[in-house]
Amino acid sequence: MNQSENIITHYLKESYPFWNKLNSREQSLLISNSTMIRYEKDSFIYSRDEDCLGVFIVLEGQIRIYIQSEDSREITLFRLAPDEVCTLSASCLIQEITFDIQIEAEESSKILLSNTPAIRTLIDHNIYVENYIYKHTTEHFSDVMWAFGQILFSSFDKRLAAYLEDERIRSGSCVLKTTHEQIAKNLGSAREVVSRMLKYFEKEGIVLLSRGTITILDTRKLRSYL
Amino acid sequence: MNQSENIITHYLKESYPFWNKLNSREQSLLISNSTMIRYEKDSFIYSRDEDCLGVFIVLEGQIRIYIQSEDSREITLFRLAPDEVCTLSASCLIQEITFDIQIEAEESSKILLSNTPAIRTLIDHNIYVENYIYKHTTEHFSDVMWAFGQILFSSFDKRLAAYLEDERIRSGSCVLKTTHEQIAKNLGSAREVVSRMLKYFEKEGIVLLSRGTITILDTRKLRSYL
Repeated sequence: MNQSENIITHYLKESYPFWNKLNSREQSLLISNSTMIRYEKDSFIYSRDEDCLGVFIVLEGQIRIYIQSEDSREITLFRLAPDEVCTLSASCLIQEITFDIQIEAEESSKILLSNTPAIRTLIDHNIYVENYIYKHTTEHFSDVMWAFGQILFSSFDKRLAAYLEDERIRSGSCVLKTTHEQIAKNLGSAREVVSRMLKYFEKEGIVLLSRGTITILDTRKLRSYL
Repeated sequence: MNQSENIITHYLKESYPFWNKLNSREQSLLISNSTMIRYEKDSFIYSRDEDCLGVFIVLEGQIRIYIQSEDSREITLFRLAPDEVCTLSASCLIQEITFDIQIEAEESSKILLSNTPAIRTLIDHNIYVENYIYKHTTEHFSDVMWAFGQILFSSFDKRLAAYLEDERIRSGSCVLKTTHEQIAKNLGSAREVVSRMLKYFEKEGIVLLSRGTITILDTRKLRSYL
């Protein structure tokens, strides 16, 4: 094994609980069909329409999984951080999945992709691999239910406050570099709606708005909306 | 085997593809822990909060799976007809499932329920059973994505027209016995919104409204909204 294969083997072993259920031939197949790929920030990774990527582990960065309506409205389903696995990117292998999702790199990201033919071979011959794929997809199901609950059952002030608070925690800063457009995209809403609510928050002394930046001034007041 | 056990065995064999992967002890366990249960129309079957039912096959009637907000708004996720299987009713067995769902009998219904302890034993000892449960749950995932797509991306006239057309096909009649309240419940909307749109459809000559009944007068015009 060369150095890159060693690294790949390390990640596969760490992330896939079925690793020990693979025979050595299957392990070799998986190693030789797994590649590290880098994506620039904001680059598009996957749409079910276009191709079938395979299963991947996030090594660096942040990946966003979302759906898109015909008129290009987007709803974020969930995000993946390093060490998390995405199986919806192999939805062509899962005949029970009949919906379309999109995947993009929200930050500059690196993934370890195991390609479709290899995963298909493993699924066909090893029940533990198939079982892992469905089990993990069920986890995604829970993430998605959470996202929809937020969208359908929360009133918008609550949702926006929750979003800002999440971003504050995630980035570790009260100064958020983001646009109204971007927030709208993430909340499956319209830019106008976001701007209106942000202006309301500004009047309430909760945030300070400037071009490309939202500064949270009063965290306690923001949290009172949650 | 007595006659009831014969019937139960027949249904288990027909509906669960893992049947042939069970040894005779496991088959006996499943048979002796499966019961036919009848539910009156509109009776409540399951909430994840309250208990853990198990996995069931619908034998007669129609079952509705939905989510409910804190203020009791409901959104229908999907429905099950005879011969269909529900695994979300065993969500306590699926640790990846962290959301709550509700299940009710929309019509007088009969199900064949295999209880939680038996299913748990089978899952723990037989990978094919576990795999079936996750696989089937992934099918439910697709149903749910379809429902959310309808709710989030369709405009309301389109959604109401689709609903009426579906009901017409399902019931085989242009005379739908339903209330505005019931439609609102099914579409995750408010009664007022449904009434307003139905009145609009009435003005357009598409439907005729009377107490507890909606008569579809112009199917072609109704379909033009889809």
